[in-house]
Amino acid sequence: MYHHETKIRVRYAETDQMGYVYHGNFATYYEVARVEMLREMGFPYKKLEDRGIKMPVLSLKCDFNAPTRYDDLISVKVTVTQKPSVKMFFSFEVYNESNILLNTGEIVLVFLDANTNKPCRCPIEITELFAQYF
Amino acid sequence: MYHHETKIRVRYAETDQMGYVYHGNFATYYEVARVEMLREMGFPYKKLEDRGIKMPVLSLKCDFNAPTRYDDLISVKVTVTQKPSVKMFFSFEVYNESNILLNTGEIVLVFLDANTNKPCRCPIEITELFAQYF
Amino acid sequence: MYHHETKIRVRYAETDQMGYVYHGNFATYYEVARVEMLREMGFPYKKLEDRGIKMPVLSLKCDFNAPTRYDDLISVKVTVTQKPSVKMFFSFEVYNESNILLNTGEIVLVFLDANTNKPCRCPIEITELFAQYF
Amino acid sequence: MYHHETKIRVRYAETDQMGYVYHGNFATYYEVARVEMLREMGFPYKKLEDRGIKMPVLSLKCDFNAPTRYDDLISVKVTVTQKPSVKMFFSFEVYNESNILLNTGEIVLVFLDANTNKPCRCPIEITELFAQYF
Repeated sequence: MYHHETKIRVRYAETDQMGYVYHGNFATYYEVARVEMLREMGFPYKKLEDRGIKMPVLSLKCDFNAPTRYDDLISVKVTVTQKPSVKMFFSFEVYNESNILLNTGEIVLVFLDANTNKPCRCPIEITELFAQYF
Repeated sequence: MYHHETKIRVRYAETDQMGYVYHGNFATYYEVARVEMLREMGFPYKKLEDRGIKMPVLSLKCDFNAPTRYDDLISVKVTVTQKPSVKMFFSFEVYNESNILLNTGEIVLVFLDANTNKPCRCPIEITELFAQYF
Repeated sequence: MYHHETKIRVRYAETDQMGYVYHGNFATYYEVARVEMLREMGFPYKKLEDRGIKMPVLSLKCDFNAPTRYDDLISVKVTVTQKPSVKMFFSFEVYNESNILLNTGEIVLVFLDANTNKPCRCPIEITELFAQYF
Repeated sequence: MYHHETKIRVRYAETDQMGYVYHGNFATYYEVARVEMLREMGFPYKKLEDRGIKMPVLSLKCDFNAPTRYDDLISVKVTVTQKPSVKMFFSFEVYNESNILLNTGEIVLVFLDANTNKPCRCPIEITELFAQYF
């Protein structure tokens, strides 16, 4: 297991008229968290696309525990739950500044060769980065 | 069980640079589908909010089977899977014009009293609308 | 001048906690309006991209006259204000169901050759479609 | 005149299939920039809403000079161009890490009393914060 934490400030554009963050926007928060995790590990997601690999989402799951509000500085804790192979499994916990658990989630991505659109192995550099955690 | 189907045209704004619909936008497609279902049944969601009831999302689940692309005219099939009480359970299937299943999903909403922010019973008119289907 | 009108239902996802449509979302409404206009004329924008032409936005201007709200069925009136050449000029008026003018806008797009990323002439079919209006 | 600069990392969700940031998303970047400016000055926008004042947008203008791309770390330079009164005038310049000017914009907001929905004077604390710059 590998853990990482990113802070995100909730934007006005992300709220809805209920006064909460619109539920679909958590997909974006999860994206930011896993991208910042990969950047910190030294392998930005952009580099992956530059090398002809893309990572579409296979499944997304969110559970909403408490309202997330405008201007909250949320902490998105991301965990890589399995050793990356053809797929990559992430889980998420989102907290506000009062350390209230707002949201939990899971996401599964797949490595795709951008030329063939076929699933492919996780690049060796990423496998190596995660090797010590599993 | 109650079924309804809505057609939605994919917008450019909803795609990402992978050339697919960004995965978080399916939450919005599901929203449109259940709102149009309620409208057709004669009880628009807006009327619910005007009466002091709001329906935040408790959980969201999406599985992605095939890429959804710009300008696709998708069919979002929504099913109310249980008799509405304090919660309301929906499932979704999204098809493109070639009748390929692109995406399936589930969502659970809760009826909240907007004054107290406490869960409340589904309004009687909605219970009655669905009574014949369960 | 060429006029066209499209109806769009405001989505919950498009509102913000002020209870209005978030101002940035008018860009998307304008997009839908000009895409539906081209579709109705017989030349969908998608066909343009399939032929190796893309149309990025050069400038965007919006004036907000009255609040646009959740579930409003808005009419977006689009006008092509000049004969298309390397650029294409659109203006927009957005009305609600009470025929209140909510918003006006202008947008300029440029035809780009997707291979060279250089500006190019408007395809002849589009020039011909608009010839009678200028 | 008062200047401030905010850095924003472009998200995947903000791109479209052209491989650029979708033009409507600059409204959100401008929002982040002016909110961070007010926060740094000691008067967060949230505090304004908590005090019963809201600031809807009256007009928005964007000019696109060069493509903004995924993962760009953009600098949004915001300038308050006039002394705040009933309205507040902002202009924006957006640069990428190579210091290329990607986008310029202008936005006008109005102070509204949230109870009456009528325009109102800028709160005295904000007037005082800006007094030295005009």
